[in-house]
Amino acid sequence: MNKSQKLLEKIPKAIYFDDEDRFYILDQTKLPTDEIIEEQTGITQIYDSIYRLKVRGAPAIGIAGAYGLVISLKDFIDLDLESFLQLVFKNASYLNSSRPTAVNLSWALNRLSKIAKDFQKCGSAKELYKVLKSEAIAIHKSDISTCMQIGEYGAKLIKEGDGVLTLCNAGALATGGIGTALAPLYIAWSNGVRFKAYSSETRPLLQGARITCWELSKFGVDTTMIADSVSSYLMKLGRVDMIIVGADRVANNGDTANKIGTSSLAVNAKFYGVAFYIACPYSTIDISSKSGDDIIVEEREANELIYIKGQQIAPKEIKVFNPAFDVTDNSLISGFITEKGIIRPPYNFSK
Amino acid sequence: MNKSQKLLEKIPKAIYFDDEDRFYILDQTKLPTDEIIEEQTGITQIYDSIYRLKVRGAPAIGIAGAYGLVISLKDFIDLDLESFLQLVFKNASYLNSSRPTAVNLSWALNRLSKIAKDFQKCGSAKELYKVLKSEAIAIHKSDISTCMQIGEYGAKLIKEGDGVLTLCNAGALATGGIGTALAPLYIAWSNGVRFKAYSSETRPLLQGARITCWELSKFGVDTTMIADSVSSYLMKLGRVDMIIVGADRVANNGDTANKIGTSSLAVNAKFYGVAFYIACPYSTIDISSKSGDDIIVEEREANELIYIKGQQIAPKEIKVFNPAFDVTDNSLISGFITEKGIIRPPYNFSK
Repeated sequence: MNKSQKLLEKIPKAIYFDDEDRFYILDQTKLPTDEIIEEQTGITQIYDSIYRLKVRGAPAIGIAGAYGLVISLKDFIDLDLESFLQLVFKNASYLNSSRPTAVNLSWALNRLSKIAKDFQKCGSAKELYKVLKSEAIAIHKSDISTCMQIGEYGAKLIKEGDGVLTLCNAGALATGGIGTALAPLYIAWSNGVRFKAYSSETRPLLQGARITCWELSKFGVDTTMIADSVSSYLMKLGRVDMIIVGADRVANNGDTANKIGTSSLAVNAKFYGVAFYIACPYSTIDISSKSGDDIIVEEREANELIYIKGQQIAPKEIKVFNPAFDVTDNSLISGFITEKGIIRPPYNFSK
Repeated sequence: MNKSQKLLEKIPKAIYFDDEDRFYILDQTKLPTDEIIEEQTGITQIYDSIYRLKVRGAPAIGIAGAYGLVISLKDFIDLDLESFLQLVFKNASYLNSSRPTAVNLSWALNRLSKIAKDFQKCGSAKELYKVLKSEAIAIHKSDISTCMQIGEYGAKLIKEGDGVLTLCNAGALATGGIGTALAPLYIAWSNGVRFKAYSSETRPLLQGARITCWELSKFGVDTTMIADSVSSYLMKLGRVDMIIVGADRVANNGDTANKIGTSSLAVNAKFYGVAFYIACPYSTIDISSKSGDDIIVEEREANELIYIKGQQIAPKEIKVFNPAFDVTDNSLISGFITEKGIIRPPYNFSK
């Protein structure tokens, strides 16, 4: 077992697929209080797990969709090929509707559907099933490798004694591997570099508190949680050397859409002279978006803010502005940590 | 009834003292779901109301302490003066221990104790009771007047169509009057100026969500709640014209300790060219603190962050950095709105 495999073994996982074609997910809605690994057997259960965010994070959803499709076909390999093909397309379409805006989900399902469509007509359902399963495993392996490379490049930035701040969860549980923003932390820590990780709780849905704190501390990284409003003061106190966050979409000029709160971190980092990095695979870079102005920011419902775990914290009728993301100006970004290396400004990804 | 009295009538109140010497408080721990006004009759009940933050905000605690002391003496006015005096000192000392760090509480109780100490020996307990009651009412009236003046000066800054952002609650419910940071909003709105108020929810204890949203919307101010991480993006979108917050302590050079998250707002305001004001009475300025370096920032317990209304949101054993306040550099502050007018930089309050 090489170093990467050893590291991967120790990292909490969102998704498992075993040698007997059994598919499991960690139910992330129950974190941090319960750690429940749930076998996924039927297609409606898989749809529900994606829909209810039991599995979340764009790369993880894509992989779950691919394995989910395979599992939904497992009991039907004795069908004739034509009937089996119809089932592939029907199930892929159904699973894809569980989170219609998640690009990785449709990307993975389309990839499997295309393979099915191109499959030679003289083959059997059993053979096609094997091909689809291999492709799902390949999608997963490719993500593992991308995360590992991001981690290797990013880890070189982290020095002994550093303070590293992150927001939301772009960790192992958002991917099939060791994460994007958290990958450098895992690699550095397993190389013996001792630093302090700070996880911003990330209102409204608290992915920093619930998920990042859970996975980092489970791995053994020295992790401290802060309220989102504390990050600036932490920088003022000189306790942050770098910020690493993920990205939902990067425009060609480097303007970056990510979890709400990212741009505030970037402005404060600029003010206090703290390095500010985005960690993301190249697939997150959308060269068709010229700048952040081309990125539409999703606004979510008021109740996400008014209630926390069913507890009302504000007047029911209060107006709420609840954007899920914000857009950080490229001028505030020290670099992009990708699987191809660290990209420094000025940014022009289409070149 | 003049304009100020009319305004005051319409504002939610933290504290009531009626003509029959009955003392009531609004239980702020129950907001925003329940609006319970609770008569305060015994000294242990009053102690408990302050200790459990049913009444909070430095000016409001001072006034509650003064009325509380008076109420605790009401049934003992037939005692001889000497026994009555001992009771005054004993009760004042007991009430003062309910929140030992609240400066206004000890200030108000010391003021009543001194009056009792200086009371002429030929007088009766009944007469002293009346004097103490008058003094408590005077403390309350003085706070009402200070708030009103802060409001009048600050209201001149707010123009039709402006966006005004605030953090935490430095409102009517933190004082005996119309608040400090919210006073300009109340005066401007009642003058017919229509603006948009934004209330940052203020983790961990959510005073913005629970209290500011409640009191502003009850008065009819157009109020929108945001997560603390949204403020920077709101400024980027051009929706904030000014930020007004309160202060816990202001150093002689203008460095200001206030609710955690204040300095992040100030850094972002500087970056986006948004005006950033502190509204506070002169009594908050501590000229013995040369700069912010002299201000000690209180750190609070981890569980304040790990649990929200009893619901666990992070791993139980996670390390937490939970400062109650931060210190904002004077260079980021556009001005101080006080009862004596708006103070502009450079700041040197001892001059």
